[in-house]
Amino acid sequence: MTNYMLVIEYDGTAYHGFQIQDRHITIQGRLETAITKLAKRPVGICGSGRTDAGVHALNQVVNFHSDLTVPVNRIPIAVNSLLPHDIRVKRAQIVSDDFHARFSAKAKTYVYHIDQTPVDSVFRRNYCWWIKNKLNWDAIIKASKYLLGTHDFAAFAASGSNVKTTVRSMYELEIVVDDQVSQLRFTADGFLYNMVRNMVGTLVEVGLGRCSVEQLQVILAARDRRLAGPTAPAKGLFLEHVFYSDFT
Amino acid sequence: MTNYMLVIEYDGTAYHGFQIQDRHITIQGRLETAITKLAKRPVGICGSGRTDAGVHALNQVVNFHSDLTVPVNRIPIAVNSLLPHDIRVKRAQIVSDDFHARFSAKAKTYVYHIDQTPVDSVFRRNYCWWIKNKLNWDAIIKASKYLLGTHDFAAFAASGSNVKTTVRSMYELEIVVDDQVSQLRFTADGFLYNMVRNMVGTLVEVGLGRCSVEQLQVILAARDRRLAGPTAPAKGLFLEHVFYSDFT
Repeated sequence: MTNYMLVIEYDGTAYHGFQIQDRHITIQGRLETAITKLAKRPVGICGSGRTDAGVHALNQVVNFHSDLTVPVNRIPIAVNSLLPHDIRVKRAQIVSDDFHARFSAKAKTYVYHIDQTPVDSVFRRNYCWWIKNKLNWDAIIKASKYLLGTHDFAAFAASGSNVKTTVRSMYELEIVVDDQVSQLRFTADGFLYNMVRNMVGTLVEVGLGRCSVEQLQVILAARDRRLAGPTAPAKGLFLEHVFYSDFT
Repeated sequence: MTNYMLVIEYDGTAYHGFQIQDRHITIQGRLETAITKLAKRPVGICGSGRTDAGVHALNQVVNFHSDLTVPVNRIPIAVNSLLPHDIRVKRAQIVSDDFHARFSAKAKTYVYHIDQTPVDSVFRRNYCWWIKNKLNWDAIIKASKYLLGTHDFAAFAASGSNVKTTVRSMYELEIVVDDQVSQLRFTADGFLYNMVRNMVGTLVEVGLGRCSVEQLQVILAARDRRLAGPTAPAKGLFLEHVFYSDFT
């Protein structure tokens, strides 16, 4: 069987997240239905990771093993014709048998959008966290520096998550400030459940002056979720990139 | 009674157009419900013009006569709290008694979005006409020049529309070409029903090479809707601006 990799874009607004579930509409469910139809036999797909309900993806990566008769360059058109318009296959390629969308991933980039316009834009309502009060972006940028490097990120992991280790390496953290939509971009070797949304929620507390810049370091060191800020809304979060070569 | 003017933004995707209708959800209907609730008595609003189902507005203008207790600078927040998130009041002001959103308008600008990316973006699916085949934008720009100035635009009016005259003055026509989303921006003293969508549909025929540049002049002069191209999809169209001072 051939191992296919697809790069996927989706608007998560209408879905109960990426991962397939009984009785709920999911991105993975829609993809498996479409690819199963194309393959004329059941196909299970594997994603680079889950995204929650309302979270979007610009370049999610999935793989699946199948023997499709359609040539690989025609796969996006063929699968897209079987998908709803809020999920699109951007490209397809054949990969080595041992490629695994999740286990082969070396790093990921997530980007979070914060809208600071005076009135919440109707066109951005599903894609940004609208925060009317002006944020102190200098403080946010300073506080964010504490998150760079290798740390135990337990303070930003959803309570009850079950992972071997909560240590992750934050390779890059870029903040692009704009009068309208500002972006917070996080690149790490991996992310704990709700980690980006919890980091953003805490950085916003700093930006609102409810938490000092230095307090962020204390929160990180304490490894206690209860000290960190609230979880930022899902709708502002986008999975932007999955890296399969070493991130340097 | 005070005459209030509101500037409105809306995502037309979920609506049966601007104008109020029985048994259909409309922008005007939602606005009247919200303002009636605020005023505690029935209020009818008047828009600068209709927009069709699926057409969006960046700055639609409406006015209404009422005696609101809320100060004018608080009206956007008060009305927005009573509106769905796909309709927003951007600003409010008190205007002279004789101001009429429709009859006082001197000119309007509509902008149309055409998406030329290889795969139709999930995030633009409700806001662009996705045309995969590469358009000849040089030809479109050349043909568009014939539309500038004062003409009888009957060729681009929806059949069956009932207006005194089909003569309009096109003041400006700007085309911004981009690898991803290109914009066609039309400013005129008024627009016939479906006029922008019919002009765009015809210009796209030129861009696809199905119609020559010079043919556009022939179509305009013939004043026959059957010679023009198809009506472009509603979702790519935005009412961008309404001018109340003389357009110069």
